[in-house]
Amino acid sequence: MQTVKKTYFTVGPSQLYPGMETMIEEALKNKVASISHRSDDFRKIYQQTKQALINLLNLPADYHLFFLGSSIEIMEKIITSCVKQNSVHLVNGAFGEKFYETAIVNGKKARKVNYGSDGFKAEKLLFPKETEMICLTQNETSSGMVIPVTTINKLRQLNPRPLLAVDIVSSAPDVNLNWNLIDLGFFSVQKGFGLPAGMAVLIASQKAIRRAEKLIKTGYSVPGFHNLLTLAEKEADYQTPETPNILAIYLLGQVVKKMIEKDIRKIRQEIKIKANLVYKTLRKCHNCRPAIRINRWRSKTTMAADLDFPSKKLLDKLNRAGLAVSDGYGENKGKQIRIANFPAHSVQKIRKLCKYLKIKLLEIDRHSNLV
Amino acid sequence: MQTVKKTYFTVGPSQLYPGMETMIEEALKNKVASISHRSDDFRKIYQQTKQALINLLNLPADYHLFFLGSSIEIMEKIITSCVKQNSVHLVNGAFGEKFYETAIVNGKKARKVNYGSDGFKAEKLLFPKETEMICLTQNETSSGMVIPVTTINKLRQLNPRPLLAVDIVSSAPDVNLNWNLIDLGFFSVQKGFGLPAGMAVLIASQKAIRRAEKLIKTGYSVPGFHNLLTLAEKEADYQTPETPNILAIYLLGQVVKKMIEKDIRKIRQEIKIKANLVYKTLRKCHNCRPAIRINRWRSKTTMAADLDFPSKKLLDKLNRAGLAVSDGYGENKGKQIRIANFPAHSVQKIRKLCKYLKIKLLEIDRHSNLV
Repeated sequence: MQTVKKTYFTVGPSQLYPGMETMIEEALKNKVASISHRSDDFRKIYQQTKQALINLLNLPADYHLFFLGSSIEIMEKIITSCVKQNSVHLVNGAFGEKFYETAIVNGKKARKVNYGSDGFKAEKLLFPKETEMICLTQNETSSGMVIPVTTINKLRQLNPRPLLAVDIVSSAPDVNLNWNLIDLGFFSVQKGFGLPAGMAVLIASQKAIRRAEKLIKTGYSVPGFHNLLTLAEKEADYQTPETPNILAIYLLGQVVKKMIEKDIRKIRQEIKIKANLVYKTLRKCHNCRPAIRINRWRSKTTMAADLDFPSKKLLDKLNRAGLAVSDGYGENKGKQIRIANFPAHSVQKIRKLCKYLKIKLLEIDRHSNLV
Repeated sequence: MQTVKKTYFTVGPSQLYPGMETMIEEALKNKVASISHRSDDFRKIYQQTKQALINLLNLPADYHLFFLGSSIEIMEKIITSCVKQNSVHLVNGAFGEKFYETAIVNGKKARKVNYGSDGFKAEKLLFPKETEMICLTQNETSSGMVIPVTTINKLRQLNPRPLLAVDIVSSAPDVNLNWNLIDLGFFSVQKGFGLPAGMAVLIASQKAIRRAEKLIKTGYSVPGFHNLLTLAEKEADYQTPETPNILAIYLLGQVVKKMIEKDIRKIRQEIKIKANLVYKTLRKCHNCRPAIRINRWRSKTTMAADLDFPSKKLLDKLNRAGLAVSDGYGENKGKQIRIANFPAHSVQKIRKLCKYLKIKLLEIDRHSNLV
């Protein structure tokens, strides 16, 4: 299919977690892809992957964990299961917007708070008292902006009643949330966990499940075959309502096991080091700069850079060097690049990327000065 | 995980298609799991898999093909996109029932026609003239009953106006439908195509898409983020609205290519031969018999047998011999076994299964005569 073998620093799908080939080989040898989703062998896989994620992310032991097809599906399940009418969405890009639109297309009176490149102050936000759920995109993959964990905690402290739902699609497992403050969180496996695409994970508190139960038992109708309650009923027996991506559930468990062995603190420390390397490189060049101005609102896992020239120039040069990064998203397509910094990306590979980034940016700079 | 290496004759997930390990290895070498779902490389994969399925199943060239997470998701998309109020469901088991319930939970005035083990005559069915969609479960995985293709064709001939939706979850690619008569068809990849679970495929006619378009353009609101129309818009550029299971789309293309090379007529011929071997074995034993009385309503791909003793006895004996078959479904759990006969199961493996089936059934028979 391709002639140059690339390293993928794309924001998702991205580089596979080291050893993925062997994990898949092992899984196939153990017939993981042939076992029934109603068998004890599957129950064990569900339970092991769930427990591993509880350990890795430091989740409260009574939290629920569901395996679904995609993050958009999860947004829909969250909104339709737990919100009768009023959700509030803090939006800084395409995926926060998608969360908001999900509420709108499902008939909710959703409110949107757009915030700009300076972020927001939790103290300045006033939510109507009927607000049932506050929806955050902790790491906005489209813009490279994060909501700092301290801001999330402050937001929760000031608004203890509504459910707090946090999209960590492209920041898990790096983001170190205090899960006791969060009711719903979700991520896709093809980003920070380095798996093939095709599955997403929903984490839900008891409070979230009780909310769904209360709504449903008072006659509220959830569209669709499954909701948070039917998912929780099946999960009690480590099962899923429909045939899930068994192989992906197994592989996720294996990756998480490796992450625990390596130590999540070390993984997070490395992500910090790698992010600093990239941002340092970007700051040193004259024809590009980090897209997000304020350091603590800047993503460490999906870093966006503004360019003074068409992004294609840089993307092509990097591609030829076997380095794939993402173009800008939406209106920033052609004007930005986005670089993933996931646990699958070694410090060494990021160093190589930085080296080439510098060379290629200089080439483009020199060429533009000549013209 | 397991000590005895088994062959899986379970009705899904089941035995992987021969060569799957190598196909996955190749895919990973070619970085299929890392490429973007917005890239040209992905577009090519979508296009190739679609074209291969058009060739294998003899689909009209203008039919649409969508990749979704599961068959239940597809049932929901079909019903919510194309039915304003009235669908009719012919039901003979749990999955036909699920199709019907999908319509009910999505607020439709669905009608259900239960039919028994003698099947039905198309001429005897009268549908109200407001019927928008007739929903069939061509191969009912839970009961092992099929609707013969001639009956489907007759049904269409007598009812030309409504959309005709056919669940071929566990009979594709064996069932040889006349697609010109069918508007919607869907299957899961973990059954007849021998892939790991986690994806399902929806085939849709122009008429079905136009119906969704007409409904939506006249103000009908489809719940959820995606519908048949948004799927078709993305498909026009060989893309999907959300990150799909790229690896599975690629692998499906590879399996279909192999099936075309082998020749679908040969695959169907073998399935017939293998089904005859199994049914012959079942008929020869005194303590079991095919669950479906009439031969032409009997599934060739998911064969159910009534047992005169608890199924666990037989399942355990077969398991110990490295042969996994499925238990009965729902109220038939413990009373039946179900045997898959997919393209991944070689004639030789089915012969081995038949041999052991005969031995184990005799053992049980002899033991029960002794007690």
